[in-house]
Amino acid sequence: MEDTATLVLLRHGESEWNASNQFTGWVDVDLTERGRAEAVRSGELLTEHALLPDVLYTSLLRRAITTAHLALDTADRLWIPVRRSWRLNERHYGALQGLNKAETKQRYGEEQFMAWRRSYDTPPPPIERGSEFSQDTDPRYANIGGGPLTECLADVVVRFLPYFTDVIVPDLRAGKAVLIVAHGNSLRALVKYLDGMSDDEVVGLNIPTGVPLRYDLDADLRPVLPGGTYLDPEAAAAGAAAVAGQGRA
Amino acid sequence: MEDTATLVLLRHGESEWNASNQFTGWVDVDLTERGRAEAVRSGELLTEHALLPDVLYTSLLRRAITTAHLALDTADRLWIPVRRSWRLNERHYGALQGLNKAETKQRYGEEQFMAWRRSYDTPPPPIERGSEFSQDTDPRYANIGGGPLTECLADVVVRFLPYFTDVIVPDLRAGKAVLIVAHGNSLRALVKYLDGMSDDEVVGLNIPTGVPLRYDLDADLRPVLPGGTYLDPEAAAAGAAAVAGQGRA
Repeated sequence: MEDTATLVLLRHGESEWNASNQFTGWVDVDLTERGRAEAVRSGELLTEHALLPDVLYTSLLRRAITTAHLALDTADRLWIPVRRSWRLNERHYGALQGLNKAETKQRYGEEQFMAWRRSYDTPPPPIERGSEFSQDTDPRYANIGGGPLTECLADVVVRFLPYFTDVIVPDLRAGKAVLIVAHGNSLRALVKYLDGMSDDEVVGLNIPTGVPLRYDLDADLRPVLPGGTYLDPEAAAAGAAAVAGQGRA
Repeated sequence: MEDTATLVLLRHGESEWNASNQFTGWVDVDLTERGRAEAVRSGELLTEHALLPDVLYTSLLRRAITTAHLALDTADRLWIPVRRSWRLNERHYGALQGLNKAETKQRYGEEQFMAWRRSYDTPPPPIERGSEFSQDTDPRYANIGGGPLTECLADVVVRFLPYFTDVIVPDLRAGKAVLIVAHGNSLRALVKYLDGMSDDEVVGLNIPTGVPLRYDLDADLRPVLPGGTYLDPEAAAAGAAAVAGQGRA
């Protein structure tokens, strides 16, 4: 496998709102103790697989930034260069942010619930400016007018892929091992692109928290192995099933 | 005070080798629990003084990187851009790295001990390549041949100031509040420059761990108030006295 580039994707460890089954989106909740342990375990997996990133990319959200810090501290790579961008943020969940997933499903029905969660192009209702979980006065989004008021997965693809191709790909082309620590839906957007999945196929894709996913990319930056390789396949399978099952009371 | 730039200097919290009174230099030891608490307290002080950094600079050493992480997590500024450079590292302590300070003083005498610790231009004996606490195979220093084998404070001035003027000053000129999280001697080198201290004057300068030091710089980037302002003056005075007293058994 000569001339391949190494890309490692890592969804942040369990957050407080993963644990309480609430729609999170751009709300900046912290990791749980379990999430912190997942992050440390991610660093152990990187070390065990001798997969040492040369450069780190994160979103602007603390659950991703802290996951990266704990994983890289464990892997003795805290010192690598890092770039952060809102373009790696979780999908904005609009007016659903803060709501309990099971209650939302009960209130709006299974079909609407799954459309909001997993359809490619159906955004939830927009969040109201000035409401409790909106970001419109958050200084980190001042340069983008506070950011979106809601997003579907197609919106995430549109705002993340230009950053991937213009900023991250040059690092891959330069032979650097790239670690991206981000979110369920921003990573779904990237995996859809890497694996050439259709809008329908991506509906069934679930990415577990806290398990590094390795892609070796060929000279055309296509995955040598479609779907990549989770460094802990058993934990990944269990985690993906748990994500798919969210919304159950 | 129009047209001033804001610069905040922060020495990392207490490290394991601060606590055990060993020369540390480029050895990548972790913070103690007390050091982590100091870092959190630094973040509280930044918040209390509404001193919110726009950009972060750190060394490549985990005691600085983790201090910055904990302080910025507390101040809700984890998301700001960060740049790291070996040029902000602690002074390399040569063959003294790993030695106990009190034992070293007893063995070599007060005069030699103070010359190594505080004279401007007397480096300790160089560290031996391949010895326990050398960095010559550390991947983070591969691009600088493993880095120096020893340094006096003058060497730190020579390697840090070009980075300050070429990389950090443009951020200050752009009106950004800059936070530098670094080390006792790299910060002494910078303060010497900012305050225009002579080689003799800097000998008496001690910078405490974990207390933010604020400089407002005028249009010529000279300190409006020489020496800057510690955000917690009492803790800073006690900390500086403790640093000055190191070497006592």
